Amino acid sequence: MAASDFDVIGIGNAIVDVLAKSDEAFLAEHKLAKGAMTLIDAPTAGKLYAAMAPAIECSGGSVANTMAGIASLGGRGAFVGKVCADQLGSVFNHDIKAAGVAFATAPAKGGPPTARCLIFVTPDGQRTMQTYLGACIELKPDDVRMEQIQGARITYLEGYLWDPPEAKEAFRKAVKIAHAAGRKVALSLSDPFCVDRHRAEFLELVEKDVDILFANEAEISSLYQTENFDTAVQRLRQKKDRIAALTRSEKGAVIVSGDQTHAVHAEKVAQVIDTTGAGDLFAAGFLFGLTHGHNLASAGRIGVICAAEIISHFGARPEVSLKDLVKSRMGHA
Amino acid sequence: MAASDFDVIGIGNAIVDVLAKSDEAFLAEHKLAKGAMTLIDAPTAGKLYAAMAPAIECSGGSVANTMAGIASLGGRGAFVGKVCADQLGSVFNHDIKAAGVAFATAPAKGGPPTARCLIFVTPDGQRTMQTYLGACIELKPDDVRMEQIQGARITYLEGYLWDPPEAKEAFRKAVKIAHAAGRKVALSLSDPFCVDRHRAEFLELVEKDVDILFANEAEISSLYQTENFDTAVQRLRQKKDRIAALTRSEKGAVIVSGDQTHAVHAEKVAQVIDTTGAGDLFAAGFLFGLTHGHNLASAGRIGVICAAEIISHFGARPEVSLKDLVKSRMGHA
Repeated sequence: MAASDFDVIGIGNAIVDVLAKSDEAFLAEHKLAKGAMTLIDAPTAGKLYAAMAPAIECSGGSVANTMAGIASLGGRGAFVGKVCADQLGSVFNHDIKAAGVAFATAPAKGGPPTARCLIFVTPDGQRTMQTYLGACIELKPDDVRMEQIQGARITYLEGYLWDPPEAKEAFRKAVKIAHAAGRKVALSLSDPFCVDRHRAEFLELVEKDVDILFANEAEISSLYQTENFDTAVQRLRQKKDRIAALTRSEKGAVIVSGDQTHAVHAEKVAQVIDTTGAGDLFAAGFLFGLTHGHNLASAGRIGVICAAEIISHFGARPEVSLKDLVKSRMGHA
Repeated sequence: MAASDFDVIGIGNAIVDVLAKSDEAFLAEHKLAKGAMTLIDAPTAGKLYAAMAPAIECSGGSVANTMAGIASLGGRGAFVGKVCADQLGSVFNHDIKAAGVAFATAPAKGGPPTARCLIFVTPDGQRTMQTYLGACIELKPDDVRMEQIQGARITYLEGYLWDPPEAKEAFRKAVKIAHAAGRKVALSLSDPFCVDRHRAEFLELVEKDVDILFANEAEISSLYQTENFDTAVQRLRQKKDRIAALTRSEKGAVIVSGDQTHAVHAEKVAQVIDTTGAGDLFAAGFLFGLTHGHNLASAGRIGVICAAEIISHFGARPEVSLKDLVKSRMGHA
């Protein structure tokens, strides 16, 4: 593989998470789709926040969480995403840089405030997300810098980028640059409802542009409109040079590449506190593994170790050195 | 006791905590006084934040934490403190109200931003605080509303109010109203360096105005300039109608009132994660106890139960219902 500046460059929505415990009655009362990510407007965000329990704020965003994970593993990562030049934007900017991720996207001056995601965590550890996209709608193709994409071995994108209207153009631009430079493109399907909103385009993307696909069972089911996991896997096998990493919660993950299949057991977790970021951190481990000489099974194993760390505490950014954690579990990193 | 609207009204600095893990080397490199609260200006806050690890934000402020604790115990509390009308101000405002505390102080429009406290938590669980007071300097006597103070059985004040120049006038006004209405005044000495900055005035306050005093060993030692805890206790006994609740970390607490002394054992904690808020939550339990018919020893016991909860996790606001916790420990609340 050619020399690189980064192992992975991620492009995603730059979001500050607002996390609070909640009960099932709250979800029912406010008609929130449990376990899903729902887009909300500013007035709805204000109303829901007013009804929310005392919360903590921490940086989030799906791909941004993945990039923080890759850095914690000792990988070289960069992130592209749009915040506003406000206090929450400063928080996001601080946290991603402090995690060791290169982040140089200019913040929007004025316009909508930095995005936030209200996350309601029920006693079963499940998270229900309500996202106000705010400044994320300001992400433009100009924010994608050619030399950064060319210099990264993998460009990693989130399906959520299809929600803000112009971000998908930034997404398409990045795909074109990456492939022209002989680099790989990875995509997370993000959320089953997000897949539902953009299915036709996602199907085309996955067919034509995606080298490494991340999805959980609900997302891949939504993409191929099948309840049968094996049917979905057969669809994925049809493109031989594509890798699909399918996460299955407590059942671990299945890595599919052409005729190959690798099942990876989930790591044991004493208590699931908050599943926010589980998929993001699996992707971190898997992408780190792929860019550090691991085979598919081993990369998957790093993924499940990282996912287990993140669900054992509140919040979607690692609380320990993932490099040390993986080393202690696998004997190497 | 006369009818009341609130068990306790607290007046304090309205602060958002920015919490991150740190190592001893970081404290040394930045010359931070371990375990203490140090005031910093905006440029220093900017520099330190840039050097800080990825952080989480959660509402803090000493008396504000206490009020959240009292509400979690089922008590009726109000808070007076000044934020700016900015994003962190909204966070503070949301969290204290969501905790069940009445909060009606108008936010400052313009001027310095909402205060933040950068908190560095070392592996031993000790917290080192660097506070940028921001909008707290805008707290004025006008923010203290006579009818609120008159309607509260105890007015609770933090020594930290002596740091912003005009807040102490608000403090003095509240003391005058409370005593004229036959109410009690409680004070926390806050921090040994804070005591050092304002010793003469604190000595006079404690002598003349304070009915219930909270201090840890370092603070009471600083107040009376003695290394000998018993000497400090003897000084406190001299005023017969004053209660002093002295916290001693893993040694628990000592309650002194005239000739009475009640030693309270600390609660066992599996692992001390973060001592931020330990004193604040002891005060919550003790003040709740006093306003709910408990004797001094029993109120002290509620205090140590609440303190144990707060040091077993990151952040200074309770993560569980303290009412349920105390009930499970004492058989009643």
